[in-house]
Amino acid sequence: MATYDVDSRNKVLRLAKRGLYDEETIFDIVDSALICHVAYEIDGQPYAMPTLVARDGNTILLHGHAKARTLLHAGAGNPVCITVTHTDGIVLARSVFNHSINYRCAMIYGRGRLITDPDEKLDVLFRFTEKLIPGRWDDTRPSTEQELKGTAAVAVEIESASAKVRTGMPSDEPEDLDLPTWAGVIPVRQIFEDPLPEQHTPADMPVPEYLHDLVNKNRV
Amino acid sequence: MATYDVDSRNKVLRLAKRGLYDEETIFDIVDSALICHVAYEIDGQPYAMPTLVARDGNTILLHGHAKARTLLHAGAGNPVCITVTHTDGIVLARSVFNHSINYRCAMIYGRGRLITDPDEKLDVLFRFTEKLIPGRWDDTRPSTEQELKGTAAVAVEIESASAKVRTGMPSDEPEDLDLPTWAGVIPVRQIFEDPLPEQHTPADMPVPEYLHDLVNKNRV
Repeated sequence: MATYDVDSRNKVLRLAKRGLYDEETIFDIVDSALICHVAYEIDGQPYAMPTLVARDGNTILLHGHAKARTLLHAGAGNPVCITVTHTDGIVLARSVFNHSINYRCAMIYGRGRLITDPDEKLDVLFRFTEKLIPGRWDDTRPSTEQELKGTAAVAVEIESASAKVRTGMPSDEPEDLDLPTWAGVIPVRQIFEDPLPEQHTPADMPVPEYLHDLVNKNRV
Repeated sequence: MATYDVDSRNKVLRLAKRGLYDEETIFDIVDSALICHVAYEIDGQPYAMPTLVARDGNTILLHGHAKARTLLHAGAGNPVCITVTHTDGIVLARSVFNHSINYRCAMIYGRGRLITDPDEKLDVLFRFTEKLIPGRWDDTRPSTEQELKGTAAVAVEIESASAKVRTGMPSDEPEDLDLPTWAGVIPVRQIFEDPLPEQHTPADMPVPEYLHDLVNKNRV
């Protein structure tokens, strides 16, 4: 896979050694996340709006209410930054200063295009559903024409992107290593728990295999 | 506790019934989070930057590298949006359209002030350390003057804020309730796992009680 050119927009400025610009790293951060935060500015006020995230090749997909401000603004071609962050650990050093966080973060830059073609919109819904809950699409009632009209979908082709990743143990000063302070990492994870049925789901209806699989992949 | 006035900036536009404006809800979302995303714009380009978050009353605290662009920009009094998001569940409806996510999100608006007074900066570090790892401050080497100089701290007084919260089960159309589709919620949680010692931590040094407590509060 390719690597994004580094320029003033996507260059990792602090702790530059943690910066990564390859598609593989950036796509993996996006594909393993549920949500992103979309940054945009309207009338001098910046906003960071959380929303679900999916991907189609070099394009980030967003969707939501047909009148959602974030989607209409992004879909009109205004510049956005789409950030995906995983928190992986609390890093406990022997000094206050060297405490840190383990994380994987992707910051993606581009301009959106509102998807109006119904088939293309349907494909976006398919990608979101199957990304978040593989196997779900064929098990649910398809969207009606009215529901499709009530949904906005935006495609943001990635113009530029970078990742920043910290892993591993604290980096203490050599003279701190003998201090009587416990140092190490507390791993942090996002996990899924056992599915809880809605009241109209019959008591004898088994949880589908694909939901078991999804939860098992994201257990402790 | 007080409630924020609703104006065009903080008004929850979509699914307005999910909008909350009281300090208690907003502060709780911030206080139970590790990180936030800070939105700002420079030269027409918006950015959403993840960073640790803490709070002192009606003020959001940010900190990091003394030359971090986000902190210098926010600390210069430019408008920012600080968003904190918890993902609490995947909501499985019987139709594609009614699928959703359970979440708690706070969006906070204000302008930053760079903290230059060493004692005030020290207090920010104390608040971050004790928020993220209660009990840690007294167990670690304090920051040197040089380390304090290498740290930037920014206070963003909250001008305006709102929360948006979704909880509970899917809301299916009445005519979908009898479809042979399993509907319900997969709970999603951020959890902490057992602390892993760094290689210079003596094998016979016990994990401090306050770290056990922290992990136990965030277990499955």
